[in-house]
Amino acid sequence: MSFEILQDKIRKLKNPTVAGLDPKLEYIPPHILADSYARCGQTLAGAADAVWQFNRGLIDALCDVVPAVKPQSAYYERLGWQGMQVMEQTIRYAKEKGLYVIADIKRGDIGSTAEAYAEAWLGDTKVGENTFEAFGADCVTINGYMGSDTINPFLEQCKARGKSLFVLVKTSNPSSGELQDMVAGDRLVYRVMGDLTQRLGKGTEDKHGFTCAGAVVGATYPSDLRELRRRLEHTFFLVPGYGAQGGTAEDVQYAFDRYGHGAIINASRSIMCAWKKTGGDGHDFQQAARDAAIAMRDDIKRFVTIV
Amino acid sequence: MSFEILQDKIRKLKNPTVAGLDPKLEYIPPHILADSYARCGQTLAGAADAVWQFNRGLIDALCDVVPAVKPQSAYYERLGWQGMQVMEQTIRYAKEKGLYVIADIKRGDIGSTAEAYAEAWLGDTKVGENTFEAFGADCVTINGYMGSDTINPFLEQCKARGKSLFVLVKTSNPSSGELQDMVAGDRLVYRVMGDLTQRLGKGTEDKHGFTCAGAVVGATYPSDLRELRRRLEHTFFLVPGYGAQGGTAEDVQYAFDRYGHGAIINASRSIMCAWKKTGGDGHDFQQAARDAAIAMRDDIKRFVTIV
Repeated sequence: MSFEILQDKIRKLKNPTVAGLDPKLEYIPPHILADSYARCGQTLAGAADAVWQFNRGLIDALCDVVPAVKPQSAYYERLGWQGMQVMEQTIRYAKEKGLYVIADIKRGDIGSTAEAYAEAWLGDTKVGENTFEAFGADCVTINGYMGSDTINPFLEQCKARGKSLFVLVKTSNPSSGELQDMVAGDRLVYRVMGDLTQRLGKGTEDKHGFTCAGAVVGATYPSDLRELRRRLEHTFFLVPGYGAQGGTAEDVQYAFDRYGHGAIINASRSIMCAWKKTGGDGHDFQQAARDAAIAMRDDIKRFVTIV
Repeated sequence: MSFEILQDKIRKLKNPTVAGLDPKLEYIPPHILADSYARCGQTLAGAADAVWQFNRGLIDALCDVVPAVKPQSAYYERLGWQGMQVMEQTIRYAKEKGLYVIADIKRGDIGSTAEAYAEAWLGDTKVGENTFEAFGADCVTINGYMGSDTINPFLEQCKARGKSLFVLVKTSNPSSGELQDMVAGDRLVYRVMGDLTQRLGKGTEDKHGFTCAGAVVGATYPSDLRELRRRLEHTFFLVPGYGAQGGTAEDVQYAFDRYGHGAIINASRSIMCAWKKTGGDGHDFQQAARDAAIAMRDDIKRFVTIV
């Protein structure tokens, strides 16, 4: 059921981290770009091909180190439908390699539109007498500004298919407080969103006590993270902001419960761009990414013990 | 500049409405589906082909009646990358036909991810020495829960390229109030979002006084609409909720200023599915859609005079 699958993978690898797959073209080693451009031209198709070669290499290098990957939709959409094709291919390949796939799409809409998004990313699409998984992720991120009308259609897919979601609650960016930190009634806005998420997920608790409705809570506000962990004991956390954005292993420890459960920490750039720090020309990107993922795992292990 | 282009089209056609292109498969006339399935199979590609035939027919029928169309991303994503290809094709074709294209994507993210979304939908993508428009819309909808870090990268594209955006402020759905109607500090949450939008857009006012940062304000809460029109005099409104969701022409009149400017009203189902009410078999879908769009225009004209 839902986060249980992820938690089991985390326990097996003793690694509560997820590798973001946010393929900016400047993150891709030059030899991969050159090869793709030579075969497909300096086109969206060429760029998409390079992203695919890079992603596949990263997945091969990381699949026995990290339990999950998180492709970020924006970088694929930027390459048009050709990019979306690579996003789908990446999700499928990562699942074949045993990874849990969180599609970082931050969608949010209502009624039949939210249902369509949920079908697109977590469910399947009926065409005549056939059904197809359009993108087939295990989990998505969603934006709940429009209220439970947004969250419920995704929850239905999660319940029906053992999948999961993360609602944006307290994000890691500098301006997150403009809205999220306002006092709304007797609570801060982000707590309202957190409480709503936990309430809607109620009844879907897995063997570790977590519902299929998780929350995004940034590492860059550790005191908020600590307080939300206490407040939302049945809510699994996705924690961005470690590394490049300034969050440390010491900060993110507060995302976990006393068993070391209930959270996964994201890093993207530090793993994808690790090859830029080895002094090489990028041919070592797989080893560099693997080393960076292992270093991150060990860094977090200093503060978190997974039972 | 930005909404000026849209406002000029509205004035020319005396029609402040936008036709939503939300192609659920059940909205498509049977003969189109049958033809596409015969050629491409009952597959995602077959369904995407049917959507394309339907959209092209609608655009041909509507392009001298409505000033704008609004494809809703969810229904294209539901058909995988093949659907996204049709979304891009639809945007391109609608622009060729002189329509203003609002991509209803409700994206929201931060930093370089928000930049990537903005490039994908409003800007262009650099690949080697070439640049491409991935989707090339005139305008997008965005979700500002993450604050100005989300809105600014889209605004930059708008300023650079004469494009526009709508931030979700007060949405038309039943549960919109769960968050949006809370009292945050001295204001309701949706007013906070509206004020933020107007403030960020400042300095981009066009000849009608509107900035390139618009707001989504639902027709289903007419008193909120009226109050927001007074409060946000430089903010162009996109108003969903007319028709199927219960909003009337009398309700939506409050979205406009005294010149009949500053707003556009959306209808999707009532136009796309108009053929289901003619007693025919769907071969008349173009005429039916056109008649419905004209009826909607005339309905709104009873309450709104465009100077």
